[in-house]
Amino acid sequence: MDIATIAGLVMAIGMMGGSLVVMEMMGHGKVNYGAFIDPPAIMMVIGGGFSVALVGFPLRNVLALAKIFMKVFFTKPEDLNHLIEQLVTLAETARRDGLLALESKAAEIDDPFMAMGIQMAVDGTRPEVIEEVMRTEIAAMSARHKEGKKVIELIGRCGPAFGMIATLLGLVMMLGNLSDPDSIGPSMAVALIGTLYGALMANLVCIPFTEKLSLRSGEEVMAKEIILRGIMGIQSGDNPRTVQQKLNTYLPPKLRPGAREAA
Amino acid sequence: MDIATIAGLVMAIGMMGGSLVVMEMMGHGKVNYGAFIDPPAIMMVIGGGFSVALVGFPLRNVLALAKIFMKVFFTKPEDLNHLIEQLVTLAETARRDGLLALESKAAEIDDPFMAMGIQMAVDGTRPEVIEEVMRTEIAAMSARHKEGKKVIELIGRCGPAFGMIATLLGLVMMLGNLSDPDSIGPSMAVALIGTLYGALMANLVCIPFTEKLSLRSGEEVMAKEIILRGIMGIQSGDNPRTVQQKLNTYLPPKLRPGAREAA
Amino acid sequence: MDIATIAGLVMAIGMMGGSLVVMEMMGHGKVNYGAFIDPPAIMMVIGGGFSVALVGFPLRNVLALAKIFMKVFFTKPEDLNHLIEQLVTLAETARRDGLLALESKAAEIDDPFMAMGIQMAVDGTRPEVIEEVMRTEIAAMSARHKEGKKVIELIGRCGPAFGMIATLLGLVMMLGNLSDPDSIGPSMAVALIGTLYGALMANLVCIPFTEKLSLRSGEEVMAKEIILRGIMGIQSGDNPRTVQQKLNTYLPPKLRPGAREAA
Amino acid sequence: MDIATIAGLVMAIGMMGGSLVVMEMMGHGKVNYGAFIDPPAIMMVIGGGFSVALVGFPLRNVLALAKIFMKVFFTKPEDLNHLIEQLVTLAETARRDGLLALESKAAEIDDPFMAMGIQMAVDGTRPEVIEEVMRTEIAAMSARHKEGKKVIELIGRCGPAFGMIATLLGLVMMLGNLSDPDSIGPSMAVALIGTLYGALMANLVCIPFTEKLSLRSGEEVMAKEIILRGIMGIQSGDNPRTVQQKLNTYLPPKLRPGAREAA
Amino acid sequence: MDIATIAGLVMAIGMMGGSLVVMEMMGHGKVNYGAFIDPPAIMMVIGGGFSVALVGFPLRNVLALAKIFMKVFFTKPEDLNHLIEQLVTLAETARRDGLLALESKAAEIDDPFMAMGIQMAVDGTRPEVIEEVMRTEIAAMSARHKEGKKVIELIGRCGPAFGMIATLLGLVMMLGNLSDPDSIGPSMAVALIGTLYGALMANLVCIPFTEKLSLRSGEEVMAKEIILRGIMGIQSGDNPRTVQQKLNTYLPPKLRPGAREAA
Repeated sequence: MDIATIAGLVMAIGMMGGSLVVMEMMGHGKVNYGAFIDPPAIMMVIGGGFSVALVGFPLRNVLALAKIFMKVFFTKPEDLNHLIEQLVTLAETARRDGLLALESKAAEIDDPFMAMGIQMAVDGTRPEVIEEVMRTEIAAMSARHKEGKKVIELIGRCGPAFGMIATLLGLVMMLGNLSDPDSIGPSMAVALIGTLYGALMANLVCIPFTEKLSLRSGEEVMAKEIILRGIMGIQSGDNPRTVQQKLNTYLPPKLRPGAREAA
Repeated sequence: MDIATIAGLVMAIGMMGGSLVVMEMMGHGKVNYGAFIDPPAIMMVIGGGFSVALVGFPLRNVLALAKIFMKVFFTKPEDLNHLIEQLVTLAETARRDGLLALESKAAEIDDPFMAMGIQMAVDGTRPEVIEEVMRTEIAAMSARHKEGKKVIELIGRCGPAFGMIATLLGLVMMLGNLSDPDSIGPSMAVALIGTLYGALMANLVCIPFTEKLSLRSGEEVMAKEIILRGIMGIQSGDNPRTVQQKLNTYLPPKLRPGAREAA
Repeated sequence: MDIATIAGLVMAIGMMGGSLVVMEMMGHGKVNYGAFIDPPAIMMVIGGGFSVALVGFPLRNVLALAKIFMKVFFTKPEDLNHLIEQLVTLAETARRDGLLALESKAAEIDDPFMAMGIQMAVDGTRPEVIEEVMRTEIAAMSARHKEGKKVIELIGRCGPAFGMIATLLGLVMMLGNLSDPDSIGPSMAVALIGTLYGALMANLVCIPFTEKLSLRSGEEVMAKEIILRGIMGIQSGDNPRTVQQKLNTYLPPKLRPGAREAA
Repeated sequence: MDIATIAGLVMAIGMMGGSLVVMEMMGHGKVNYGAFIDPPAIMMVIGGGFSVALVGFPLRNVLALAKIFMKVFFTKPEDLNHLIEQLVTLAETARRDGLLALESKAAEIDDPFMAMGIQMAVDGTRPEVIEEVMRTEIAAMSARHKEGKKVIELIGRCGPAFGMIATLLGLVMMLGNLSDPDSIGPSMAVALIGTLYGALMANLVCIPFTEKLSLRSGEEVMAKEIILRGIMGIQSGDNPRTVQQKLNTYLPPKLRPGAREAA
Repeated sequence: MDIATIAGLVMAIGMMGGSLVVMEMMGHGKVNYGAFIDPPAIMMVIGGGFSVALVGFPLRNVLALAKIFMKVFFTKPEDLNHLIEQLVTLAETARRDGLLALESKAAEIDDPFMAMGIQMAVDGTRPEVIEEVMRTEIAAMSARHKEGKKVIELIGRCGPAFGMIATLLGLVMMLGNLSDPDSIGPSMAVALIGTLYGALMANLVCIPFTEKLSLRSGEEVMAKEIILRGIMGIQSGDNPRTVQQKLNTYLPPKLRPGAREAA
């Protein structure tokens, strides 16, 4: 669970609600909270963003959007220290009892990428082949992340226009019903909500999401790189201490066990 | 047929219609659907986009626009697996019955690029010459795609201004007829439609189209590259299995027969 | 004469006129065509663009603008095939009758760059010197084109602001004369024309012009490059067939005599 | 204390107050200064910027914002001349009394980075190790600065939208209370303040802050680089004059003792 | 005196005045020229630009702004031909009467950079040292120019927002005094002037100024480079003709004595 993402979204919504409450308290009239939930504008902004994604990318990439959004909400940052510990333990087992002893352990490994590597090592696959297969997986994962980010970037770039289009639809409708002066205010209010939704979609969701996806992608690539390096060491029978030292160099200085920090 | 492109456009239009229906149901007045079809604004936005293309590019590139638009709608993604199978079959024939046996098969090949390559191989053209001729074709195709994309980019960049210009024309006209108050609302509504059309042209059509064209161009280049590699292998009398293995490396890991996938 | 440029501009103006006619036919009031010709806005947009060019560039570059605009309208694409034929004919003469025989022909050559090269060859100038002198000319021409493009880019970037300034001047003036309600509509209409002109200057003229200038510059550089290569071949006494073959490689595949074309 | 940052912010606020006073003096009505302090808009703009940062970055980076803002206000430019003097003094001590004599001095050093280096030198750490450890610290510091800058850039890019959203919330609220005509003016005024705050946050705070942070980061990296070079020289027993000469080359020419300056 | 800069600014102001006169002649009401001079908006736009510069850069760079603005107005393009003549004359003196004979001439040299170089040559400074010292000066000058340009770019980027803020302040004030309907028009007019000033500051001043500063910086660097090359030649006792030939290669082909020109 990525608490910051959720906290950010909740906070933004809360701020909007809160500022309406404050406006009411300051005497700018009574807030009709329902007026801010505007189904046609929701349809236009979400539907428009989805349409743009379909026009710009193959169906397969658009269907992957749900998975990508989940990632922004539910990815825990990789615990690199834990990962290294796990690899060092495996290295100890391999050193003590031989590579084949890892077979029983492989079943307990959660990470499918690490399990695949261990299985290949147990199977006696040649190191070059293991490295190539694992690197190909990492590259394919990184390419998949980039594609996902591009879809969200396109939605963030073209989506706000659909908020504006929702506003224009509302204004055109209002202008066609000017004969009823009492409806002008509420109609115009509804029209403006489209612009508000479009601004939120781009500025609260799409643009910050691409930032976070970049960060998460970088972290995942580094985690996989550590696993790859660890498995190469395990297979070549490296001393578990050596494995640990090598893998620690992948950590940012601050996260290294016993790191000093300068201001 | 590129279902995603068509689905995206249909969905966007449907969303607009749907949100008008919902607005009507919510009591914001009666929708006059005809008001959203505005011939002068259509003229301005499509004509303006076309004018900009003519001013910015030679006639020949602008005339190619129709072909480019068709591509976004009707290109099926290349079936790379099928392509490889076809090349492997040709390699088997060549191995079994000699290169000349391909002559009869060449007539059955749909892809003109593959047919050209096979014909050159049958004719005994030297491999370097085959490669050079085919690469030149690929480079020329890629350059043609880039030029086409640039025209659409220019329309997407300058076109929305013509929507705004349609709106300005409508407003100026309305301001010249203020004496008839009943016409102000409808005139202003018509004026706003220009801005709506311009926003759609850029954000639903041009910008996503350039994304999809980039993707399609990449796929076509890769397909041609596979054909080129296959024909080089066939000509040099490679074992059909070897041909298949080499060509499979061009596939993204997911599409390789028997590929494993990591999260 | 660049028909596409002129057709594009005429078409854009025609579309504007046509959509006004259609608006009138649709019953949105009577068009006062004169209202769209607004001398103060013309002054502001053209004068503003010119002022910006003067502030941003030396006088000499600004004075070159007229020449640059002419180029967008009147440059015929270089006929590279004709150029190559001409050079091959000269090569034949030189082969048959010696380099000195070109002296009489030099007078008939229209292109001053080719004439200069032939003259140097006839004068017995050393090949390295000919190449250096001609390359320097090409580089200087290319730099001149880039400078010209930058002036138009600056006008296209800052110019629309002067359209908006014209609108602001008009609005301020209108707001100072609110006591005469009948003048508000026409005054506001006049004000909006400034924005319209600014949008046209940037989106119909400056941005597409820089695209076309880039293209034309690339073509001219290539033509000069062909002339340079041709003259080097003529001087070294190459066989006219060899000269032709070498120069044909500069042509895009489609334009080569006898080119095949793939989709 | 960075006087320029504070002077700039104070001046901008002062200018706004001043121009309100002048407007009042010019007879455009009475200023209600309180109207410019609009709690809901403050909530929206500051809260929105913070939300965006949370969605786009991990919690840790967002919490570092306070520290980053402090840096823009309170960082004194590094006094490089003083730093060099300090290092030269240490070099003299080391030369005269040996490296171990620095131990007592190390306690007096304010800069933790310099203290760490001196301590390592005293401890007899090998020069390559000292250099690697110190360089890693510099690189980590520089990466930390870049991350901080990216958070402020995101807030500056997405934040103004929250000012606009505050305005939209205010307008929607106003349109829902049109029945009370006296409240329209003040409600609309309050709505506009949101846009004003958003413009200030981006243009007076975020964009200039990223400029200043870049500058400060460059200065800090250079100061650390000087310390690193100085300590390497001290450890290798360089003549204090040599140390001084080498370190002076890091100074911009103007700041070198006895520098001449050209126009 | 840079006539183009001044002509551009005068022309832009003149155009604005002229279009007001034309509007009056066309019957759009009487112009109140005083309405276009709006002290609060002047305060906001100039003060705001200055504030932004202070927040984004150290005090020293902001104080240099006056000098930079002067440069855009008063820099004469360097007369490179004259510079080369001067250096050739010095080379002749040095050849005829020895390096020491330049001492008396050094006093007559206006350019401090040339004087410094000549003085070093007279003093018998080694050529490598002269070159290093002079190159350092050139690099420092170029860095100073870049910094100055960045300040103006920041003002041009953030400054227009202060024009909009001036407008918002004016609107908020107007909305607080709606009870006096006669003041609405003039108050709104005054508010719009802020936007007008902001647009002028960015589009007429800052953006074109950075273009011209780039150009001038390139010219100054080239002039200094010519001086450096000339002094190196003088010191090594080159023949004055050789000095002249070498320095002429720095000139654009058009400016070389006796240059031919191609279209």
